Amino acid sequence: MKQSEMLIPTFKEVPADAEIKSHQLLVRAGFIRQTASGVYSFLPLGKKVLRKVEDIVRQEMDQTGANEMVMPAMQPAELWKETGRWNNFGPELMRLNDRHDREFALGATHEEVITSIVRDEIKSYKRLPLTVYQIQTKFRDEKRPRFGLLRGREFIMKDAYSFHDSYDSLDNTYQRIFDAYSTIFQRCGLNFRAVIADSGAMGGKDTHEFMVLSEVGEDTIAYSDSSDYAANVEMAPVIADYQKSQESEEPLQLVETPNQKTMQDVAEFLNHPLEKGLKALMFKVDDRLVLVVTRGDHEVNDIKLKNLFKAESVELATEEETKAAAGAGFGSLGPIGIAEGIDIVADNAVEYTTNVSCGANKDGFHYLNANQGRDFTIDTYADLRFIKEGDPSPDGVGKIQFAKGIEVGHVFKLGSFYAERMGASILNDQGKSQTMVMGSYGIGVSRTLAAIVEQHHDEDGMVWPANIAPFQVHLLAMNMKKDDQKQLAEKLYHSLSQAGIEVLFDDRKERAGVKFADSDLIGIPLRITVGKRAEEGIVEVKHRTGADKTELHESELLEQIKTLL
Amino acid sequence: MKQSEMLIPTFKEVPADAEIKSHQLLVRAGFIRQTASGVYSFLPLGKKVLRKVEDIVRQEMDQTGANEMVMPAMQPAELWKETGRWNNFGPELMRLNDRHDREFALGATHEEVITSIVRDEIKSYKRLPLTVYQIQTKFRDEKRPRFGLLRGREFIMKDAYSFHDSYDSLDNTYQRIFDAYSTIFQRCGLNFRAVIADSGAMGGKDTHEFMVLSEVGEDTIAYSDSSDYAANVEMAPVIADYQKSQESEEPLQLVETPNQKTMQDVAEFLNHPLEKGLKALMFKVDDRLVLVVTRGDHEVNDIKLKNLFKAESVELATEEETKAAAGAGFGSLGPIGIAEGIDIVADNAVEYTTNVSCGANKDGFHYLNANQGRDFTIDTYADLRFIKEGDPSPDGVGKIQFAKGIEVGHVFKLGSFYAERMGASILNDQGKSQTMVMGSYGIGVSRTLAAIVEQHHDEDGMVWPANIAPFQVHLLAMNMKKDDQKQLAEKLYHSLSQAGIEVLFDDRKERAGVKFADSDLIGIPLRITVGKRAEEGIVEVKHRTGADKTELHESELLEQIKTLL
Repeated sequence: MKQSEMLIPTFKEVPADAEIKSHQLLVRAGFIRQTASGVYSFLPLGKKVLRKVEDIVRQEMDQTGANEMVMPAMQPAELWKETGRWNNFGPELMRLNDRHDREFALGATHEEVITSIVRDEIKSYKRLPLTVYQIQTKFRDEKRPRFGLLRGREFIMKDAYSFHDSYDSLDNTYQRIFDAYSTIFQRCGLNFRAVIADSGAMGGKDTHEFMVLSEVGEDTIAYSDSSDYAANVEMAPVIADYQKSQESEEPLQLVETPNQKTMQDVAEFLNHPLEKGLKALMFKVDDRLVLVVTRGDHEVNDIKLKNLFKAESVELATEEETKAAAGAGFGSLGPIGIAEGIDIVADNAVEYTTNVSCGANKDGFHYLNANQGRDFTIDTYADLRFIKEGDPSPDGVGKIQFAKGIEVGHVFKLGSFYAERMGASILNDQGKSQTMVMGSYGIGVSRTLAAIVEQHHDEDGMVWPANIAPFQVHLLAMNMKKDDQKQLAEKLYHSLSQAGIEVLFDDRKERAGVKFADSDLIGIPLRITVGKRAEEGIVEVKHRTGADKTELHESELLEQIKTLL
Repeated sequence: MKQSEMLIPTFKEVPADAEIKSHQLLVRAGFIRQTASGVYSFLPLGKKVLRKVEDIVRQEMDQTGANEMVMPAMQPAELWKETGRWNNFGPELMRLNDRHDREFALGATHEEVITSIVRDEIKSYKRLPLTVYQIQTKFRDEKRPRFGLLRGREFIMKDAYSFHDSYDSLDNTYQRIFDAYSTIFQRCGLNFRAVIADSGAMGGKDTHEFMVLSEVGEDTIAYSDSSDYAANVEMAPVIADYQKSQESEEPLQLVETPNQKTMQDVAEFLNHPLEKGLKALMFKVDDRLVLVVTRGDHEVNDIKLKNLFKAESVELATEEETKAAAGAGFGSLGPIGIAEGIDIVADNAVEYTTNVSCGANKDGFHYLNANQGRDFTIDTYADLRFIKEGDPSPDGVGKIQFAKGIEVGHVFKLGSFYAERMGASILNDQGKSQTMVMGSYGIGVSRTLAAIVEQHHDEDGMVWPANIAPFQVHLLAMNMKKDDQKQLAEKLYHSLSQAGIEVLFDDRKERAGVKFADSDLIGIPLRITVGKRAEEGIVEVKHRTGADKTELHESELLEQIKTLL
């Protein structure tokens, strides 16, 4: 297309509200414009790259045998009430009333709609498994929209749902879609990891998140330096390889520790390393109080605590509740002499400690040389802490490292959560009624775009992977007022276009400097410049990222370009 | 695709809520399902045909040089307040508040959003003209959603907007998009007319509606039987070819016409044809009273009346207002002896009448032998009536006929309505600030689908035009339990698919009768049946609409199918 006929508003200044590179560059290069907080318009270049991502997603989803369909944004409240999510989803769910005062949700996700369709239409196991997907706008009223396309309120997702008569069948489809996701993100040119994730409140089984590695990611990934193991940091189990030290037990000793509040304070005051102290925190696990003990250098992982007790909720007790139960506030809690009726659980590492310090359950006092078994008893040892960098990888191969990630995909074995609540059942091969088993699978399409830019840019602008670039070739005429340049550029524009190459032709009457800067900003892989040697039929070809420029005669250009692409 | 893996829920019964064929068939054949009143999900087959229409629209819009983009559904109320439409659009505009209680409209149309983008980004005439379009979901809270996809509350539109520095430039783009629309609807296999329409309240100039001819259409089109002239019935001017009769004027005579209310009543009572009476109606045109006179067989066209007076509003006066002003109620109004200060206007036909009856402005009385000039005076004669079937076509070629139409497209020279209110201006080539001129262009994409079905079905189901059909070939195995049929069908499925032909393969273990009925219902153009002669490698080929079945050997099938497609 001719650049003079396209809406590509570029500028140099970094937008004040754009904290991260993808946001800055997509706005500066004229790919997107904000219409309201967290709500964007995709300008022509933005729409082009969006379509490239959508096409890859569609091709790979079709390969899995999934059916494309499209469900509405407007969803009757009644459906969300069937699953309880009308109340549970919270203020992220956008709601409106129609002119007859009927309540609607704006689709934040489509489990309810698809389950209502499938329960009405599918009655026999013979029609299963079935996988459907859509590429559709989603609405979520984020409290604090930010980072451009990374956390918006109206955005584009590919969501898919599968229906089965058995978990085996679900496992098959899950794996197929998992593989498709890997292919999709590879084709998008992304460096990513599939990480084990938390199945959360919906009671499903396996779930993986696809994380693009990036410093601006909001999630932390724990991954092996030597295998493909990766998990969301709160999900990684800790393999116990603790050693009991050989030192002999010293006598327990009560010491004053005035005004020492944190573990760090106490360790410095008592002049020992962090790991020679015990940390004790009082939690409310559902309705009961539980004292949780870890080594001083470890952090309690409340998801593991929640799973240990199969609890609905886990939260820290208030200082008042703590004091009432244990006799001391936050700074001086410990496992010795704790009141009856309070469970004491500890991370596995605690079992291997000797002569450690701990709070004395008396404000301003600690014990030295505390030893488990002799001075206190733990009801249950379990893996209760966050994994740390340097810990052995849970798969036994290599050591753990941390990275930040942007979640671009999520695959989830839902089980029968929705099917049960909405009465989606089939007759199985024995003629008996049986609840369906479901999976759900999402890709943040517009977010994937932003993630690509995070990984593919330099100081001059974006550097689009060939598969995603809005055009394959950027053709620049340095001076459109010179007839020879204008004529040669127009001739090349037509011949390249006719050969099926996607060309953006900068035919504007702008200075060459403006054109080069815009070209780097927009980031099309290959640039052809028609300049001073136009009269001889010679043009310059350059990769977006390379420094080398090659001069070519117009007669050999088309073949060379095809080779380069 | 294999039918066993697709969600295609078909059934025989006509759905109770579906009044028209397209609604009935799209539901029965499993193309769509209602999620809420006027809100539909497109199941896999529905999505396929939708994409075919979208692709045609996209190709032809791209050909015009328009830029594809995409704007959000959520639109800040502030934008709609700038143009006054936040109040004027009425209850059709869906509205919601976000978690911070900010007001939003759900996009019913996108003039405000695009104008806000363009006014911010385009400052010079050098960047114009510019045309952008999107294919995007629209929301309109119809009071009475009905007819399936024909009048929904959430639906898919292609909307386009053009920006110009002159009306000449607008005229060019308008014509280009007009032509593109003609191509689009031709490629969709539609019998349509581009009709002159009413530019309504927005003060634009030319506007055309693209109407698909159909008995279920809600608009009436007046078209020439001998040329391509067509207009929305209220827009067609009447060409005066009235003749004054040769009869001499008879004396005026007052007669009693007790309880004769309508023109028909009076004509019968006085024993003359309808056209020998005058009809008089009292209108309120803005704030003044106007008596409008037509021949008894003609109907007042209030849009023409409104245009004559350049009025904001035109409505019938109440019977009380009428009586107070003229001394008689509705049944006995007439032009003779009307009070000073009331304008009398008449349709051109009235000037050519002789010896006609008319109300006497005295309840229960009429005059006979009234003659204009002698008995009453008309302030202004103008074209004030609806055109009728049989009238000469306004372009001078042929006679007018009526047809019903479904509006599938609309092109509109908006002028500067939006640009003025939203401050969208540019510096022109003299360096002076100038308001932009705009056009807008819509296609109801999902409605077009329904219109196609209205024109392409028979008693057995849908009959998709080749360009729109969800698949090109429907391959049926009559009995999947027979190995020879199963094997041959699968072999053909793979060879046809590999040749790039879109095949739906009915591999279900259903009876042949069910498969044939479903196949007719779904309406794929070509059917291949693998049946009893499978062992010999012989299959049957049939067009959806033809009665002829051709037997072919598998070896010659591929070539034959390519020829048939």
